[in-house]
Amino acid sequence: MSAGWFRRRFLPGGPLPAPRPPRPRASPVPYRRPRFLRGSGSGSGPADAPRRPDARPVRSPARGRALPWNAGYAEIINAEKSEFNEDQAACGQLCIRRCEFGAEEDQEWLALCSEELLTGHYWALFDGHGGPAAAILAANTLHSCLRRQLEAVVEGVVATRPPMHLSGHCVCTSDPQFVEEKGIRAEDLVIGALESAFQECDEVIGRELEASGQVGGCTALVAVSLQGKLYVANAGDSRAILVRKDEIRPLSSEFTPETERQRIQQLVGVLQREAVDPQLVSPQSPEATREPDLCLASLPEAFVYPELLAGEFTRLEFPRRLKGDDLGQKVLFRDHHMRGWSYKCVEKSDLKYPLIHGQGRQARLLGTLAVSRGLGDHQLRVLDTNIQLKPFLLSVPQVTVLDVDQLELQEEDVVVMATDGLWDVLSNEQVAQLVRSFLPGNREDPHRFSELAQMLIHSTQGKDDGPTGEGQVSYDDISVFVIPLHSQGQRSDGH
Amino acid sequence: MSAGWFRRRFLPGGPLPAPRPPRPRASPVPYRRPRFLRGSGSGSGPADAPRRPDARPVRSPARGRALPWNAGYAEIINAEKSEFNEDQAACGQLCIRRCEFGAEEDQEWLALCSEELLTGHYWALFDGHGGPAAAILAANTLHSCLRRQLEAVVEGVVATRPPMHLSGHCVCTSDPQFVEEKGIRAEDLVIGALESAFQECDEVIGRELEASGQVGGCTALVAVSLQGKLYVANAGDSRAILVRKDEIRPLSSEFTPETERQRIQQLVGVLQREAVDPQLVSPQSPEATREPDLCLASLPEAFVYPELLAGEFTRLEFPRRLKGDDLGQKVLFRDHHMRGWSYKCVEKSDLKYPLIHGQGRQARLLGTLAVSRGLGDHQLRVLDTNIQLKPFLLSVPQVTVLDVDQLELQEEDVVVMATDGLWDVLSNEQVAQLVRSFLPGNREDPHRFSELAQMLIHSTQGKDDGPTGEGQVSYDDISVFVIPLHSQGQRSDGH
Repeated sequence: MSAGWFRRRFLPGGPLPAPRPPRPRASPVPYRRPRFLRGSGSGSGPADAPRRPDARPVRSPARGRALPWNAGYAEIINAEKSEFNEDQAACGQLCIRRCEFGAEEDQEWLALCSEELLTGHYWALFDGHGGPAAAILAANTLHSCLRRQLEAVVEGVVATRPPMHLSGHCVCTSDPQFVEEKGIRAEDLVIGALESAFQECDEVIGRELEASGQVGGCTALVAVSLQGKLYVANAGDSRAILVRKDEIRPLSSEFTPETERQRIQQLVGVLQREAVDPQLVSPQSPEATREPDLCLASLPEAFVYPELLAGEFTRLEFPRRLKGDDLGQKVLFRDHHMRGWSYKCVEKSDLKYPLIHGQGRQARLLGTLAVSRGLGDHQLRVLDTNIQLKPFLLSVPQVTVLDVDQLELQEEDVVVMATDGLWDVLSNEQVAQLVRSFLPGNREDPHRFSELAQMLIHSTQGKDDGPTGEGQVSYDDISVFVIPLHSQGQRSDGH
Repeated sequence: MSAGWFRRRFLPGGPLPAPRPPRPRASPVPYRRPRFLRGSGSGSGPADAPRRPDARPVRSPARGRALPWNAGYAEIINAEKSEFNEDQAACGQLCIRRCEFGAEEDQEWLALCSEELLTGHYWALFDGHGGPAAAILAANTLHSCLRRQLEAVVEGVVATRPPMHLSGHCVCTSDPQFVEEKGIRAEDLVIGALESAFQECDEVIGRELEASGQVGGCTALVAVSLQGKLYVANAGDSRAILVRKDEIRPLSSEFTPETERQRIQQLVGVLQREAVDPQLVSPQSPEATREPDLCLASLPEAFVYPELLAGEFTRLEFPRRLKGDDLGQKVLFRDHHMRGWSYKCVEKSDLKYPLIHGQGRQARLLGTLAVSRGLGDHQLRVLDTNIQLKPFLLSVPQVTVLDVDQLELQEEDVVVMATDGLWDVLSNEQVAQLVRSFLPGNREDPHRFSELAQMLIHSTQGKDDGPTGEGQVSYDDISVFVIPLHSQGQRSDGH
């Protein structure tokens, strides 16, 4: 399998940076090479030795180095947003074994023999913020969490339909029918494993960062190829799309303060006092009379945690931040229950800084974060306050499933995964156009997917002679995986 | 405009019921004919007198009577689920005036003169449960709430783009730019008005039912034609679809315990204790140390209202209700953060009755309700307990917008709105097939939309010679509106 991954930073609008010696990626977070990650180059067997990408740049010399724990092709130049790279990535083979053999430590030999139940492939991009620590931890940890989660349910994953009981024991003769009526399929177990793995990884990052006195967070975009399906799990603002000859299909959605406005506002939604009817709370209900908060809790809008804002922010959204001159006027606003807009008379509390403020790429949660899902950030607080960001952040990804086996695959069908820097300046259609113009003419080139990834990044650097000819410029780091689907379509797992 | 609305109950599989004298629709809820509702028959001007539908049945004599407050064509036979009809409907013209003229009571004459800023059309279906009271109140009230909400923002609705300030006053010169950057359009104000109107109506129903010692709730599906757009607002399990020659487009989604599982489970989501790291809650944070609940509140999963279940239910979903034999085994489950499935070891608390139980049409919230959004139900409790349903129910609708002016309308393009009884036995495709086979051959018939509505209901009665030939049977009440779009496409509003 030959997948290309590139991350470069060019000086926007200016000349390409001169080659620099690679910086050490040393970090207070101890580096461990994950054992399950095998080489996933174009060769057939596992390749434990790190590979030098040997990529040939398309238009300019590309300098960088291979990530030792990344068995795919990689090219990195530090973006200097922090001393170490904030973007991190991982890819490799995913070997799922039976879990009843005991602890991993006792079963070292298993990695080398054929007890694997399933083999898949794994690609992940982590876009860090507030330092590289969370992204590095995620790149070193998430695949282990996922493997553990998958191994815990693997008997269900390899069954035609997951059994009600993992033991195979049947309490009711109609158990298979219940499972069938619920429509539970093997892929639902993989989705569940991805969801749990993200949460587990988030907890690990929280513990490790705290223990080492570090901070930070990262987005996570993961693709897993397993049993003829491609699972894409996303928490953050990276994006994956499927590009085929006649089709562009988004495989992920972005999670930002704007797209998750209602969920975030709901967390601090205050019950409208005029809507409270004390009669609605039964005096016979013990939990309703115990304390006032629980009275509110028995009404539907009672997601009452205004304390999270410490009186510093307003939950409401306005077209701009309000000022004194707006007091008493009716201005456009919306609250957590609204997808539409309405007008309200401005009160003094509306002048506070908004929970979600800014527009598009400038939108920020509590004036601090541009994403609303991701890993880490357990210690992150609003500047000069004790207001925590974490209660508003979710580590749970959204998972989409692409049934690769059902596609009539062409050799040029690929999935493009990239961090937000690419999508800031290139639309899905522009990326697809670049893919379609590049691949067919380079069929004989074994490095064409790597070169395509590099070319995509180059297209964001505002050269007039760039493939899009529109001179767009990205000021952000960009990391790109190009995953050819043709090889994924033929089931390569051991089962 | 000729829209057809029919609601019939046939004895499933058996002969059609013999004609019965119409039952009185007397109800403890006082009936008021809403003043704004004008006749919306095929005639051109307002027709305040109720119209006799004069519908010609397609295959069998249809008995019934016109709803006096429904100016469209209507046909009702009591379904005998309760003494009075549980399904209710309303349709008519919607006249939006400037609100600065004063209270409605002082401005009676306005209804008869030309001070209206906007004219639209309104159709609504309410599927009651636990008695007809909530549905009757909704049919008598919701349009008034909507009119009030629209009148409060009408200057913004008729503007090219809503102004930041309703007064037209401009505090910042760049205010129009802020509104444009947020992408706020006139239609967002209509969506906001619909959302607020549903909530206001829900509060009115709560108060009125309590005052009259009645109970019950209802779903609500509303279509509003305004300024060349059709707004469809849905709270419950009714459905609206657009049917054109080459297109079927869903205009609503159903809200049931199954489709809203995660939202409902989240309300009683209990923080996983093993995930709580006390270090994550800063001791300096005053709100974190005030009381234990607020410590939980500072973590993202702290939607902690297990009290709502009073220890009687389990929040988790399993393929079937668990029993003693399942104890200690690993069974399929999912929690609020999961769209996928996983396995868990069954504990004693998992044997409780599930918060959401059953499959498909049998799925129930707290063993009681089949819908998760709607109006009313303020007093509804789980049988023999004090557990309230209302905290889990939302009155907020989901609103979709159909830009009718952008469609190249054909004479046979219609919107079909119906309560769940129709969709239980007919798919969108089957309904579309019936529409397409019926309308073109009946172009000269002025009652063809009413007859189509009647024919759709007839098709659910399991006759082998029915248009679908599949002998499907509905055991539920069915109410249907067929709204021809051709007349809606030409803006008929006064602005």
